[in-house]
Amino acid sequence: MNSTDAAQKAPAKDPWELPDVSGLVVGVLGGTGDQGRGLAYRLARAGQKVIIGSRAAERAETAARELGHGVEGAANAECARRSDIVIVAVPWDGHAATLTALRDDLAGKLVVDCVNPLGFDKKGAYALKPEEGSAAEQAAALLPESRVTAAFHHLSAVLLQDPAVEKIDTDVMVLGEVRADCETVQALAARIPGMRGVFAGRLRNAHQVESLVANLISVNRRYKAHAGLRITDV
Amino acid sequence: MNSTDAAQKAPAKDPWELPDVSGLVVGVLGGTGDQGRGLAYRLARAGQKVIIGSRAAERAETAARELGHGVEGAANAECARRSDIVIVAVPWDGHAATLTALRDDLAGKLVVDCVNPLGFDKKGAYALKPEEGSAAEQAAALLPESRVTAAFHHLSAVLLQDPAVEKIDTDVMVLGEVRADCETVQALAARIPGMRGVFAGRLRNAHQVESLVANLISVNRRYKAHAGLRITDV
Repeated sequence: MNSTDAAQKAPAKDPWELPDVSGLVVGVLGGTGDQGRGLAYRLARAGQKVIIGSRAAERAETAARELGHGVEGAANAECARRSDIVIVAVPWDGHAATLTALRDDLAGKLVVDCVNPLGFDKKGAYALKPEEGSAAEQAAALLPESRVTAAFHHLSAVLLQDPAVEKIDTDVMVLGEVRADCETVQALAARIPGMRGVFAGRLRNAHQVESLVANLISVNRRYKAHAGLRITDV
Repeated sequence: MNSTDAAQKAPAKDPWELPDVSGLVVGVLGGTGDQGRGLAYRLARAGQKVIIGSRAAERAETAARELGHGVEGAANAECARRSDIVIVAVPWDGHAATLTALRDDLAGKLVVDCVNPLGFDKKGAYALKPEEGSAAEQAAALLPESRVTAAFHHLSAVLLQDPAVEKIDTDVMVLGEVRADCETVQALAARIPGMRGVFAGRLRNAHQVESLVANLISVNRRYKAHAGLRITDV
């Protein structure tokens, strides 16, 4: 890393001083998929009020009952409207269409995109490059009245969903344009035992964070692991 | 991470069983820059024979004397010819031209590209997208007779060069097409106290590893840190 860690201006405040988010309602679009279900479970288990969304309200309600911990299920639009923070955990295939349909419901909301645009072939996973640069930038383009951030990309859905796992040993890279929004998401990540939310740049640098999942898939395969990431020296 | 950590075929061998690389000569092209100098210092301090290369032999020799630990300096071509493993730590600007000029000298060598193609503006660092996909894939395209891998992207040049730092608390993601080549580079990374070399995929997934440095720069700025990465659960 050349000239990257040169002296920088002192931050105006302690970067670990984060807001209290315990009273916020968290919606999870795509909450019936593995990633969404795992995040919903962890956040609800940590005491957060969680509503999972699905195209069919009934499917979301069934999944919510299975998750317990007070999780509710609703159709995507209702999930969005009732939530303060909305995590987007839908498959990349349906990303643009889902967000376009929910534009009004997501207006004014803090949106957290955790979608990884990946392709798969015989050689494994590889990064797809969205026209907008990344899934998060696509969300920002489609949701001009929402506050869009990106986070929760590198979590193992297996670990998230395993009730026997007490702590998830990983950091969550949080990206966004507005410091207060990033800090809210960092605080949300920190609700989950073992996790920290670490600010990791603007949305224009989301693509590499999203697509690093392809590398973690290679790690998982080689080491038979559920790999995550820790950022050292912070 | 959806369906990423599903059960995979058992590896044929223990992924931590790595070759003995202590007898190999390591060349560092761009060895007078911060990153190259730091890597040369760490590897030589760990007992590796290191030759740093520069366009001007004299500059390389001067830098080598400053580094001590038996480091030698030479012009790039001689550095390449005398080395078994050649680390490419040149600036992205000169990457293609340097490798093109050294194609014959690098034939048959194990090449380790650690170049991060980045741009900088008022908002900080951002990823550049090489036409070939990544710096590593550019190297592979320009060096058809070399064995090209990618590694050592996320290291703090400040920490590498600081003699008071005993251990570098970070993992090194190693990418490549040939398992034996990757294992050699993983073993080389593991020579440096605190580091592990972790296989992290094929060269087609190098871009996100290279450009993640833009995110680490944001981390460094926000947390006043020299951030590195650890891969958890491996």
